[in-house]
Amino acid sequence: MSRVKKRRSGPGRPEGESFARERILNAAEATFADHGYAGTSLRQIVERANVTQALVTYYFGSKDALFKEVFLRRGREIALKRQQALQALQAKGKPLVLRDVVACYLGPALEMRRTREGRSFIRLQSRMHTEPPRFAEQLRREVYDHTAREFHAAFREAAPHLSARTAYWRLILVIGAYLYAHSDAHRLEKMSGGLCNTRDLDEMLEQITAFVVGGLSAPEPKA
Amino acid sequence: MSRVKKRRSGPGRPEGESFARERILNAAEATFADHGYAGTSLRQIVERANVTQALVTYYFGSKDALFKEVFLRRGREIALKRQQALQALQAKGKPLVLRDVVACYLGPALEMRRTREGRSFIRLQSRMHTEPPRFAEQLRREVYDHTAREFHAAFREAAPHLSARTAYWRLILVIGAYLYAHSDAHRLEKMSGGLCNTRDLDEMLEQITAFVVGGLSAPEPKA
Repeated sequence: MSRVKKRRSGPGRPEGESFARERILNAAEATFADHGYAGTSLRQIVERANVTQALVTYYFGSKDALFKEVFLRRGREIALKRQQALQALQAKGKPLVLRDVVACYLGPALEMRRTREGRSFIRLQSRMHTEPPRFAEQLRREVYDHTAREFHAAFREAAPHLSARTAYWRLILVIGAYLYAHSDAHRLEKMSGGLCNTRDLDEMLEQITAFVVGGLSAPEPKA
Repeated sequence: MSRVKKRRSGPGRPEGESFARERILNAAEATFADHGYAGTSLRQIVERANVTQALVTYYFGSKDALFKEVFLRRGREIALKRQQALQALQAKGKPLVLRDVVACYLGPALEMRRTREGRSFIRLQSRMHTEPPRFAEQLRREVYDHTAREFHAAFREAAPHLSARTAYWRLILVIGAYLYAHSDAHRLEKMSGGLCNTRDLDEMLEQITAFVVGGLSAPEPKA
């Protein structure tokens, strides 16, 4: 019997709603991250959250809908923080510097590493590129594409030698580089024999930023 | 009834062995690429290859063992081609240039895009970073780590300003960048409104190379 259910004291929506919703979302996030979308059942989530299946259905309906909520919750947070950081930078009224634009982009995602829940989301998200539920592409576009376009423009403003086409290529290459370092940090630690410390967020941010700024600054390739 | 089984004409190993093995490996590769390791059953592979389950078991034993063979077949080919390209470059006896070292690394993997089977392998491989079977990490290390170390050394020879630590970070960032562009090409096409043509292998190679050389050439980060 769940704590939330016990609290229910009358008709209508149960009390402690946001508490129970959060708990279900956290359990779902961790389970999807561990087992992937296909490998996760509602029952696993119900057990992990220690609630009744009825409550999960009440709040979220289907597994699809729950996955969407899980993704949107942090995805929107990352997108919003990126946007706010870029707007704050632009509000200074100075010419954009590539390194600062990159920091606005990388910072909010890498900050996720600070909490266990955030790390679950990172794993979940990197799975979405390779083991996607049917609706994943639509979801990623909905959450990230608008911001991605703003950064595409900002990259070109800071590096005017880039064609629109090359700036799109580089945006994707930036995403790939940071996502991989982010999600496969274990390989780096092993391969480097411990020389690289991926639990040091400053080291990670500094290393990714240096590489990515170098890549973005590179000359426009000849067609 | 499979073609291979019909061919069997006596005791001992069936005839057409390499033909049947290849057919099973190709079917397994495509199925693992489509459904992931966890989502794939031997039965699906058997159906796709149009052979008997007994034949698959005869050649490969378990699903684990079959997956390993699938991965090793092309993984070793890529690793070997990278090594040979680097050795050929070193045999010229000239100082190493970063762009040439990068070409030795990227070329063999990107060439895989030319065939349907190669593209299946790329999808399968990008899944291995996020939806790995238990033994995947060991397998990747076995196939790629030796070559990765050779490239780590070659990068530092061509870019002597890099510390060993930074060169390891950048190796991982290079891998992440090309793998992502490789496996999530669809997003790039959509986001760029068709400006970027990911079916043009020359464009892809040129764009990834330019970015990655820029990233590798970037100054050593402080810290």
